[in-house]
Amino acid sequence: MSEHTVKAFDEDITRLRGLIAEMGGLAEVAIQEGMEALIKGDEDLAVEVVARDKKIDALESEVDKLAVRIIALRAPMADDLREVIAAMKIAGVVERIGDYSKNIAKRVKDIDERKHFEPLALLPAMAELASEMVHDVLTAYAARDPVLAREVIAADNKVDAFYNSIFRNVVSYMVENPATISSAAQILFIARNIERIGDHATNVAEMVHFAATGNYPPDEDH
Amino acid sequence: MSEHTVKAFDEDITRLRGLIAEMGGLAEVAIQEGMEALIKGDEDLAVEVVARDKKIDALESEVDKLAVRIIALRAPMADDLREVIAAMKIAGVVERIGDYSKNIAKRVKDIDERKHFEPLALLPAMAELASEMVHDVLTAYAARDPVLAREVIAADNKVDAFYNSIFRNVVSYMVENPATISSAAQILFIARNIERIGDHATNVAEMVHFAATGNYPPDEDH
Repeated sequence: MSEHTVKAFDEDITRLRGLIAEMGGLAEVAIQEGMEALIKGDEDLAVEVVARDKKIDALESEVDKLAVRIIALRAPMADDLREVIAAMKIAGVVERIGDYSKNIAKRVKDIDERKHFEPLALLPAMAELASEMVHDVLTAYAARDPVLAREVIAADNKVDAFYNSIFRNVVSYMVENPATISSAAQILFIARNIERIGDHATNVAEMVHFAATGNYPPDEDH
Repeated sequence: MSEHTVKAFDEDITRLRGLIAEMGGLAEVAIQEGMEALIKGDEDLAVEVVARDKKIDALESEVDKLAVRIIALRAPMADDLREVIAAMKIAGVVERIGDYSKNIAKRVKDIDERKHFEPLALLPAMAELASEMVHDVLTAYAARDPVLAREVIAADNKVDAFYNSIFRNVVSYMVENPATISSAAQILFIARNIERIGDHATNVAEMVHFAATGNYPPDEDH
């Protein structure tokens, strides 16, 4: 490529990475604010989180548009091409992460119990783990860091273990407090959505590793 | 586009769809044969399933390459462009489905109990549900059928319910048969992987719906 074209290409790639970073940041906020809305029983905040998901969807469209433009105009090769393709796929997965956070916020109004509802107690820590995984995988993406990507994959075991603990905890609680079964069931759905966020952060980590090295990470046991 | 170019484009799109169909077929077989290897304790078949996953990975690369070619050479617009982008993202998700099936096969050797190991009993039915979801979503993709895509999304609830039942069933079994805890724990990992296959089939369904209509399906409760 000519010097002018290299400069234009670098600007495009920088913009592409910026869009992914912006999507990821919004997804992280959605997890945290969805959890805040849940713990406080704040239905207004929950409605905001749901509405803001459209912004994440719109950013995915922008990523797709820009990636297509880069492919059509700059004819990227090898590493550069891998990065552009990865951006499109990663945007798709981050959009899903946003959806799971939106689904969590949508359940806030279905929980009748307010304050001191014991099954809620473990969720914030689980959500924090998942939020960190999303944060770290986007850091790994920006830095093209395959080592950090592999750490994110390893962290998924912790989120899964949390899910299992919450499940057993909530089922016991339901048995002891059958009047709260409906609200407690919402907790299980929410925990399931957080577990899926962790799984999808792992998917992004695999794509980041591939984009950075040309290989998927060696299979760890998960 | 000129008539010649339209024909060339149609051929490219037909090939792209064929690659996705091939990936999906291999992923379905991987689920079924992974389950067969598990139930029969057939470690040779398990090794085959693991090895064949490379073929799915290779097909994802081919999809990416062809999609980039189409974008660079045919300048697709609107619906056509949406389809090409969706193919790349769907290939990424189907590659993940293949990975989960590979992970199931890898656990066959870790299960010491052979035949009549009660916790195994519910897995084939759960795997069958997930395999049907993969099959149906690929049918929906080929037919550009958003209605079938939404049916696949609705089916995910059944797979989730199965997971919850298996989890409780296996935990009870572990309590009653502590000598089998290690093998029983493998059943939980396997059920987790099947549940993730169902979740990813749902992701593909959302992408199929988007590619077909320009919109994501209205939120069902999941």
